[in-house]
Amino acid sequence: MSLNKYCQSSSSSSSSSSIRDKKVFSKLKLGLTGDYPKKNAELLSAQYGINLLLVGVALMLAIARHDSFVKEKDLLSFTTGLMIVQLLWMLWYIVMRHSQRKKQTQRDVTATTCWIRGGLTLLAVLSLIMDTLKIGYFVSFRSCLSAVFVVYPVIHAIHTVAQVHFVWFYIKDVIKSFETFGRFGVIHAVFTNLLLWCSSVMSETEHFMSNHMRRIFALEFENITEGEPEVPCNCTTTTCSLLSQSFTYLFPFNIEYHIFVSALLFVMWKNIGRTIDMSSNRKSLVTKTQGLTLGPILGLLALVSTIGILVVYITRLEGSLEVRQSAISMFYIYGIIMLLVMVSACASGLLIYRVKHMPFDASKNPSRQLDTELLFGFSLGSWLMSWCSIVSVFSNPSDPPHRWTNLIYSLLIILEKYVQNLFIIESLYRQQENVQRTDPELPAAPEVFSVTLSPPSLNGIINQAYESPDGGRSSVENEQEDNGQVYRCQRKQSDVRLPVEEPLNMKRLVLKNIAILLLLCNISLWILPAFGCRPQYDNGLEEETFGFSVWATVVNFAIPLNLFYRFHSVGSLFEVFRRV
Amino acid sequence: MSLNKYCQSSSSSSSSSSIRDKKVFSKLKLGLTGDYPKKNAELLSAQYGINLLLVGVALMLAIARHDSFVKEKDLLSFTTGLMIVQLLWMLWYIVMRHSQRKKQTQRDVTATTCWIRGGLTLLAVLSLIMDTLKIGYFVSFRSCLSAVFVVYPVIHAIHTVAQVHFVWFYIKDVIKSFETFGRFGVIHAVFTNLLLWCSSVMSETEHFMSNHMRRIFALEFENITEGEPEVPCNCTTTTCSLLSQSFTYLFPFNIEYHIFVSALLFVMWKNIGRTIDMSSNRKSLVTKTQGLTLGPILGLLALVSTIGILVVYITRLEGSLEVRQSAISMFYIYGIIMLLVMVSACASGLLIYRVKHMPFDASKNPSRQLDTELLFGFSLGSWLMSWCSIVSVFSNPSDPPHRWTNLIYSLLIILEKYVQNLFIIESLYRQQENVQRTDPELPAAPEVFSVTLSPPSLNGIINQAYESPDGGRSSVENEQEDNGQVYRCQRKQSDVRLPVEEPLNMKRLVLKNIAILLLLCNISLWILPAFGCRPQYDNGLEEETFGFSVWATVVNFAIPLNLFYRFHSVGSLFEVFRRV
Repeated sequence: MSLNKYCQSSSSSSSSSSIRDKKVFSKLKLGLTGDYPKKNAELLSAQYGINLLLVGVALMLAIARHDSFVKEKDLLSFTTGLMIVQLLWMLWYIVMRHSQRKKQTQRDVTATTCWIRGGLTLLAVLSLIMDTLKIGYFVSFRSCLSAVFVVYPVIHAIHTVAQVHFVWFYIKDVIKSFETFGRFGVIHAVFTNLLLWCSSVMSETEHFMSNHMRRIFALEFENITEGEPEVPCNCTTTTCSLLSQSFTYLFPFNIEYHIFVSALLFVMWKNIGRTIDMSSNRKSLVTKTQGLTLGPILGLLALVSTIGILVVYITRLEGSLEVRQSAISMFYIYGIIMLLVMVSACASGLLIYRVKHMPFDASKNPSRQLDTELLFGFSLGSWLMSWCSIVSVFSNPSDPPHRWTNLIYSLLIILEKYVQNLFIIESLYRQQENVQRTDPELPAAPEVFSVTLSPPSLNGIINQAYESPDGGRSSVENEQEDNGQVYRCQRKQSDVRLPVEEPLNMKRLVLKNIAILLLLCNISLWILPAFGCRPQYDNGLEEETFGFSVWATVVNFAIPLNLFYRFHSVGSLFEVFRRV
Repeated sequence: MSLNKYCQSSSSSSSSSSIRDKKVFSKLKLGLTGDYPKKNAELLSAQYGINLLLVGVALMLAIARHDSFVKEKDLLSFTTGLMIVQLLWMLWYIVMRHSQRKKQTQRDVTATTCWIRGGLTLLAVLSLIMDTLKIGYFVSFRSCLSAVFVVYPVIHAIHTVAQVHFVWFYIKDVIKSFETFGRFGVIHAVFTNLLLWCSSVMSETEHFMSNHMRRIFALEFENITEGEPEVPCNCTTTTCSLLSQSFTYLFPFNIEYHIFVSALLFVMWKNIGRTIDMSSNRKSLVTKTQGLTLGPILGLLALVSTIGILVVYITRLEGSLEVRQSAISMFYIYGIIMLLVMVSACASGLLIYRVKHMPFDASKNPSRQLDTELLFGFSLGSWLMSWCSIVSVFSNPSDPPHRWTNLIYSLLIILEKYVQNLFIIESLYRQQENVQRTDPELPAAPEVFSVTLSPPSLNGIINQAYESPDGGRSSVENEQEDNGQVYRCQRKQSDVRLPVEEPLNMKRLVLKNIAILLLLCNISLWILPAFGCRPQYDNGLEEETFGFSVWATVVNFAIPLNLFYRFHSVGSLFEVFRRV
């Protein structure tokens, strides 16, 4: 009916329709060139990014089949292409920032800290060494391999250097001009790094599985060289096996490097177009170390014993069946002790929080929000693996070795991640205590706290570009910002609102010790699987229940997630250590 | 150092330490019994829920292996246990609500609408029929099967009835008392339903795969009965094969029922402890249907032809190789036409939005937020599947049949989901037009709109319990709320702020037609895979590239996600239809 009405009116007033058409087209032009609504622009770019990743995953699935039409060089060409596009975008961004240097750029100071960027640089350096070794290795086979195998590590090395530079100088920027193009560029970078992570995980898994298979058939075929990638011709230099053995040890660092960068870039993407709350105060964190004894001592003990266990496990695994079984028993007992210590530490931390009621800091902080989601999401892998172990333990009618140690170990793994996530997230969301208080035993009712506290003091968001370089006054004049000088550490600016120094009270001291202990324990639990200590393959129990292919899929899915979980919780625990 | 100081002081003042200990314990008690911080309570319950699901997934993975120690009855016992716990919790909640009927209960009116609950009830009825058929079927085998096989459908039927009752009367509640217990109960319900979804998907996949295998070997073994579950003894009644064939047709509805309920319950979980914005207005939506011609006609045409295609496809698939190939060709051509229409419709909708600039509605609405995430997340499955197809098309050195139609179809699938997500989400986030405006061609510059608009008029959140039953005045007196009367449809309350009736303008009319066309097309694209039309298995191209096991895994992962995507977009498009 209404459509008919419209048709009639449009036919009767055909003279005015052309004017109306022009109006509509000019409005359309405005709509297309003007700012795209934020929610939609985010979705537009997120969908682009996820599809990039899926293309890569499809290629990887095709490569996984050995006689496939898709070869590794296709995947390498694709990722090389993505890295080149990212390099071009970063170049454009840097040039654009320099041309707009007179304009104030908002920055989100919570996006990353100096020590995170330092750690990232270290990982990047190790990745660069890996690239160099790879170049050397593939150059030896240049006569029979596609040029892509040499081009890839070269581009990867350039990409690594450029990206670390970008992270140091621009990652905190809140992009406000060319928002849509910026969104696409940043999400492209996020998913390129995620794809590089997936591809590194695949290489590492392949390497591990070939080692595992070699060990299984060790008695029959003793002359297989360890972990050397399959190449169709002979090495032209003498260093091939040395090179290939060396670069496989650097895989874990390269893997963590990529996922770490993509998390940082994701926060940058979430910040695009955001309006930073200018009124909130920032309190700089001063890392105090007095009174730290028990935590570091226990933690270092754990770390040292972990390295011992790793060496013993790896060497014993090459031995006879009895020696292998004893290595696995040793691992489980060690794991149970470690996890018990960690669970007790987290539980004590949570109990202290229950005694000391504090209001939560609900300010917007994409970085912290992401931390929470990553901790939760990346726990899934090892929870699934543990539940599979528990199902195997209860369903197996025979009495295999390590049955009950495996059960206790798996239950503790679930419990440990459960309470550790609670502890870390509660620590990150609690408002910081006002350190001027002197009596540590003052009644701690919530009302008292929320009244005596100064307005939420760790909102953490400030516009660094609006600060004058001496850090004292907040000047909003048109400051000539030098990019080279922007990445000042938070510590340097601590004179803005230096908290009054006061001795740590007992509860905070205990919390600090707990955080440092957990940090070192998480490093230990990262080292073990990262360097090949994976009893899930060696104990045979789950393989019997699920079959080799299903169980290998579960473990190969769970272990990369678990590795990143440990790595990420180390970062979060350091943050906790500085906050409490 | 500080620790030493504390030790000294505590040993010197041992008399005061016991008093202090008591203080600490009383504070601890307060902390444990008092309100747990919201962020942490959410995490606590979410972690519990996800672990429930993972136990189920571990059991399913074990069952997937045919000679496994874990049997189907173990999984059924586990899910039955979970359903009983959920029933007990719902009972407790209902009793608690009745005992507190004098207290006002806040409700989130955006949480669900009448027609969603109506649709859900329909699905539940079909699930109940399935349960009845299952009971009949398994009773026939009672002599040789575990009692669990009969207990499970009985409990499932009770669970379905109780849950539908819960959804009708309590799903909109914003729980404010016993928050932590409430969180655990609701999340338990969410993950119980998700687990039931996974388990139904597994049964359906098994059924489909056995049919598929039967077809492949049809020439050799002609006497296998269709889709009958494997049982260790003979049927005691004559209706067995009829019963088993009937209930497999109801699988798709049961699958959608469970995931739908879990989405609704998830919104309830997100609402727990939330403070609803009382000041915001609500404009009730009146579904206008005048001027709808092209959209419904084209949509119905699509729906009818879909059913034709389904019947032809399924029957032709049983035929010779040439007949099968022609069926597959027919499917792809039909799919390409459908998708082209849908892409054009979405693109037109987005262009209209670009012409007609409107501010976005940024009010908090967990239900809408979830809609966005579900649409995006559930697209992943079919995007991955399409990219795998594209990789196969390009990598295959021979020239298999359907190569180029498959390529175009896959590209269109990606594009269609891309633009449809953009269209739906932009539609849901745009603020509604102020319908009092009469001239549809008034200059539509954004500034004019944001000024002429009354304060954001579809915030959509209101406290129904604070309204008096006659719907006119907003009375905050202690109203005796009758649970039986709470589930008034929004339509009934439309007299609160009835918008002035006005003819639909042209753009809104086009949008309404687009929405209804897309809705019917999405129903069509749900019907095809739900009832067994899956050319991804039949064309053979991807299987050649990826190998059967990898490709079957990808398809079995992607299709359930895609089915839910279609189902969910039907719901969202109906919402769009009412809003525009």
